[in-house]
Amino acid sequence: MTHKIAILGASGYTGAELVRLIATHPGLEIAALAADRRAGMAMGAVFPHLRHLDLPQLAPIREVDFSGIDLCFCALPHGTSQAVIRDLPQHLRIVDLSADFRLRDPADYKQWYGRDHVAPECQAQAVYGLTEFYRTEIRHARLVAGTGCNAAAGLYGVRPLVAAGLIDVDDIVLDLKCAVSGAGRGLKEPLLHAELSEGFHAYATGGTHRHLGEFDQELRAVAGRPVRVRFTPHLVPANRGILASAYVKGDPGAIHAALEAAYANEPFIVTLPFGETPSTRHVRGSNFCHLGVAGDRIGGCATVIAALDNLTKGSSGQAVQNANLMLGAEETAGLMLAPCFP
Amino acid sequence: MTHKIAILGASGYTGAELVRLIATHPGLEIAALAADRRAGMAMGAVFPHLRHLDLPQLAPIREVDFSGIDLCFCALPHGTSQAVIRDLPQHLRIVDLSADFRLRDPADYKQWYGRDHVAPECQAQAVYGLTEFYRTEIRHARLVAGTGCNAAAGLYGVRPLVAAGLIDVDDIVLDLKCAVSGAGRGLKEPLLHAELSEGFHAYATGGTHRHLGEFDQELRAVAGRPVRVRFTPHLVPANRGILASAYVKGDPGAIHAALEAAYANEPFIVTLPFGETPSTRHVRGSNFCHLGVAGDRIGGCATVIAALDNLTKGSSGQAVQNANLMLGAEETAGLMLAPCFP
Amino acid sequence: MTHKIAILGASGYTGAELVRLIATHPGLEIAALAADRRAGMAMGAVFPHLRHLDLPQLAPIREVDFSGIDLCFCALPHGTSQAVIRDLPQHLRIVDLSADFRLRDPADYKQWYGRDHVAPECQAQAVYGLTEFYRTEIRHARLVAGTGCNAAAGLYGVRPLVAAGLIDVDDIVLDLKCAVSGAGRGLKEPLLHAELSEGFHAYATGGTHRHLGEFDQELRAVAGRPVRVRFTPHLVPANRGILASAYVKGDPGAIHAALEAAYANEPFIVTLPFGETPSTRHVRGSNFCHLGVAGDRIGGCATVIAALDNLTKGSSGQAVQNANLMLGAEETAGLMLAPCFP
Amino acid sequence: MTHKIAILGASGYTGAELVRLIATHPGLEIAALAADRRAGMAMGAVFPHLRHLDLPQLAPIREVDFSGIDLCFCALPHGTSQAVIRDLPQHLRIVDLSADFRLRDPADYKQWYGRDHVAPECQAQAVYGLTEFYRTEIRHARLVAGTGCNAAAGLYGVRPLVAAGLIDVDDIVLDLKCAVSGAGRGLKEPLLHAELSEGFHAYATGGTHRHLGEFDQELRAVAGRPVRVRFTPHLVPANRGILASAYVKGDPGAIHAALEAAYANEPFIVTLPFGETPSTRHVRGSNFCHLGVAGDRIGGCATVIAALDNLTKGSSGQAVQNANLMLGAEETAGLMLAPCFP
Repeated sequence: MTHKIAILGASGYTGAELVRLIATHPGLEIAALAADRRAGMAMGAVFPHLRHLDLPQLAPIREVDFSGIDLCFCALPHGTSQAVIRDLPQHLRIVDLSADFRLRDPADYKQWYGRDHVAPECQAQAVYGLTEFYRTEIRHARLVAGTGCNAAAGLYGVRPLVAAGLIDVDDIVLDLKCAVSGAGRGLKEPLLHAELSEGFHAYATGGTHRHLGEFDQELRAVAGRPVRVRFTPHLVPANRGILASAYVKGDPGAIHAALEAAYANEPFIVTLPFGETPSTRHVRGSNFCHLGVAGDRIGGCATVIAALDNLTKGSSGQAVQNANLMLGAEETAGLMLAPCFP
Repeated sequence: MTHKIAILGASGYTGAELVRLIATHPGLEIAALAADRRAGMAMGAVFPHLRHLDLPQLAPIREVDFSGIDLCFCALPHGTSQAVIRDLPQHLRIVDLSADFRLRDPADYKQWYGRDHVAPECQAQAVYGLTEFYRTEIRHARLVAGTGCNAAAGLYGVRPLVAAGLIDVDDIVLDLKCAVSGAGRGLKEPLLHAELSEGFHAYATGGTHRHLGEFDQELRAVAGRPVRVRFTPHLVPANRGILASAYVKGDPGAIHAALEAAYANEPFIVTLPFGETPSTRHVRGSNFCHLGVAGDRIGGCATVIAALDNLTKGSSGQAVQNANLMLGAEETAGLMLAPCFP
Repeated sequence: MTHKIAILGASGYTGAELVRLIATHPGLEIAALAADRRAGMAMGAVFPHLRHLDLPQLAPIREVDFSGIDLCFCALPHGTSQAVIRDLPQHLRIVDLSADFRLRDPADYKQWYGRDHVAPECQAQAVYGLTEFYRTEIRHARLVAGTGCNAAAGLYGVRPLVAAGLIDVDDIVLDLKCAVSGAGRGLKEPLLHAELSEGFHAYATGGTHRHLGEFDQELRAVAGRPVRVRFTPHLVPANRGILASAYVKGDPGAIHAALEAAYANEPFIVTLPFGETPSTRHVRGSNFCHLGVAGDRIGGCATVIAALDNLTKGSSGQAVQNANLMLGAEETAGLMLAPCFP
Repeated sequence: MTHKIAILGASGYTGAELVRLIATHPGLEIAALAADRRAGMAMGAVFPHLRHLDLPQLAPIREVDFSGIDLCFCALPHGTSQAVIRDLPQHLRIVDLSADFRLRDPADYKQWYGRDHVAPECQAQAVYGLTEFYRTEIRHARLVAGTGCNAAAGLYGVRPLVAAGLIDVDDIVLDLKCAVSGAGRGLKEPLLHAELSEGFHAYATGGTHRHLGEFDQELRAVAGRPVRVRFTPHLVPANRGILASAYVKGDPGAIHAALEAAYANEPFIVTLPFGETPSTRHVRGSNFCHLGVAGDRIGGCATVIAALDNLTKGSSGQAVQNANLMLGAEETAGLMLAPCFP
């Protein structure tokens, strides 16, 4: 059975990645593509790598006919999704890839995003899209809020450990290395090839990155008390991939066992043998997440490293996975593409 | 219906690319993987991006049981395929990805590869694997010889023009830009990241590159007389992709029309509108080839540019396409993966 | 003896490269830096790699006090230099890095740049800055027009051959591979890391690139008749470097000998032994240009390949070399930095 | 006054970097270059970016005539330096770039390098080459042991803080991002462009990296008690640069002030304004190290980030700086090259 879907905000990288994945998905059909700034263009003109596909032209969002559509992916910029989603027809299931509905508490939203939410009633309905931990809720949700790509990478490594009480929740250091596509297709000087390639640096230091709101929310939920991680992202010269190195205090063997147990039946989360370390190149272009655990010469210390593709498992792949659940399809449908290496 | 296949030489890049493609192919099942140097290892240890797949262990070639296997991909190094293929059981269909069976005339083989062929009887049977031009022969072939990746890129642009008598066959300049995976996984100093990245250079200058043997053979066949192109490959700092810029003499409009006509019904060859130029990034990881034609301020001159992924359309994707034909499957089966961009 | 210089347009890549080179130049002192859009900023804030230097703050161009300044580098965008230079004080020597004064004939300027020149009286004075061929004129010039980086790379390879009558001037194909810094620091989608890295393509096909005006002018001057080359640039994923592959008809040995002779006493132009090919990585960050010549299996054909760094020998290094001549300094002063590899 | 120097192990990256720096050094003259495996070759054949220099041919080490030489740089592989240095003539000053003499205690050497030291008498004389902290000793040393590049990056950030008692020495996390040239020019599969580019991963996890021996030694020396950092290096797809992110506990403002004070008069160490973060691209190809300090939303926590070029400040530039001190030259001689950006 085929479900019709629409993609709003199809002219960005996550929009293109949705199209790439859905192109070989057996049960989804792209019925509408919308992007206000590029309205009137063919998708193949905006993203020539998709020119072989028979796709609807990009339309203005307000002109999309949602009547025959089952599910709508929103890949709009942060801050613009909420008003659009508030006004969508009620029959639609919605997977939002922006940050607008990730934080359940409006006060948290205001703290991290600096303004009041314009659709708090939708926010209350939204389910956090970290599939492996909210599968049941996602199945029945009308609105699923895709996680931040950094939050996904970090949470895969540490959430089960906090939940199991295996690590000191007051001493978690998360050092992330992020490829550049996570910053989107916007024209910013630091994203130019001549600026970015061949160098690397930290950004959003000091506990200021907005994905911290998600860490706070999710880890508090499983710890039953506030948990604040130290989190610093670094931009590295690559297009896809996030590597999250978590420095935690706890027993390395127990930590590894807990991750293995937590993900034993997960189709996309692979826990490597103890001591092996994952690489972003081995999940590139795929919906897989690889996890590695190492001990340390200092007793009671462990390093947990997660690797995923920010555009796939960190965003559009996760969105398709959630859509599959919401539509009653096979959860892995369209998502078993092997990583593209080299 | 599922066909069982074997891959000999699975530990190189083209072997891994075969596995990547077959992983989501609906009609092929990997029954055996062989690689002498890595025999005994799991494929996921040699290529961790494939670790999520349930694959047979790497075996020595001589230990492969071919009895239940329908088709064998040979991704062995040049020069070693011929003896192996000569000794394979007769029931097997074979797609060879090496250079060993590309040149029909043993004298040509000796000229370009510097030694006598050890299996001339097989060479006589082999069909040149440039699918679009040998489709009928490939369907019935026992042995198909995959083209050189550079030859494929160059031939897609100029072969129909020579065949149609539209260009001066004595004045064809082919300037190729090649990504590094075409050179394989061998340990060579110029292939190190520190050596290769951030710089570019020509190699095999002076009409010495072995793929010239293929150009000579194929263009002579359609011209009905010897044709010698000037061909210089350049190594650029990227992993996948070949861009072949052909400088030809002929009418640009007629050239564009001829390419459009030649490939009008081809599933993988896309002729861009006149004046548009293809990019390797828009075919990356896919089996597509994009072709562009531009005129010149000098009348009677045209530039024809072809872009393909050397590991896919230039090698393993082409091999699967040919295998599909040989096994009576849908030609595009398993090959409609959209390019991975960015 | 120290000369005081000013740099107008210091906030672009060629401006920064001038500062980098002058930082260790024994005879030049930076007395003023100007950049209208970034006026008021410290150079170290615009280019943090220069933060260790004691430099004047960026000023608006109109506020620069030129009274004590000997020579002014203009690194302004194409089209804006001419009015600025027209109005500079007469005592100033000027090295312009833009395209505004490269074409001697106002009709040529209008043809290639699509508008009338606003300072034709300056244009008449300007000397084309290809140092090795205009050394005497440059010494006495008030205004030197830096060459286009692509034109420089191409001309180093073919100009002596045309001058010597060694090649067929009606059959010159120039295929260039260019790194991205030549496109400047402007915010354009194709220059983003996520767009550019890992792919390559041709641009300005069809004989439309503006540097053709320079090829026409310079080759006509030495041939004594019109010469039109076929020239197609390609953008490759690297930051610095141009590789110009010239496909010419003539005797390879004679061609090599002519280049060796032409550049025998040049400090920055290195002719490699016959058959060796240059690489951009071996001139990176330096003022050197490496030239290689190869024959072809087809008699009477040769490939001449030139490699230089577009920001150095193709622009700012050339500018300093010309400034040295104009100021009576050692021509190589400040320019003997070895290339930065890897 | 010019001093004559020799370089043993000139065919590796640190050897080439020494030559690059000395090429424009006013007081050093390269009198001998040695490299056993490449003996008999011209340096310009091994490193074509140095072909413009007039250099001695590569000789076998045993054939070098040290009689007129003042100082010898040893850029030999780890483990092979010690025997060579033990046997050098006594009149020679020596700067060793290998790991062989970094650890003062033979027991430490054995622990980290797995064998007995063959020249413990030399080891006892050696001065650790972290210039800013051993300047006086280096001036008078016969043998200076260049620091590990990772150790240098990490120590610049945390050593003054440990010395000043400003941070909890039992809770230091050092997450390093390292470019690939630090791994040398050896032929290893993970260093291939096709393997490394576009991905990133941790290596030497679990407190196993040998540079930990240096951290232990140096931090213990200033703390007056054992200090063990948690240190994990990550390989990122770039050629030059190390970014060391240190997660420490202490007052961010006091930490920033302490670093500013410690390096106030240092020519190469730049402490950025509080809250700014350094980038490897802004020190590339130079001898500078940039340091940044950020606070955290969690009180009493700070992140200290150091950026340097592993081949320059982390190795060959440091070596020249130390040689300058040993020879009584200006400490910064030959080292004020501005970073090469972009």
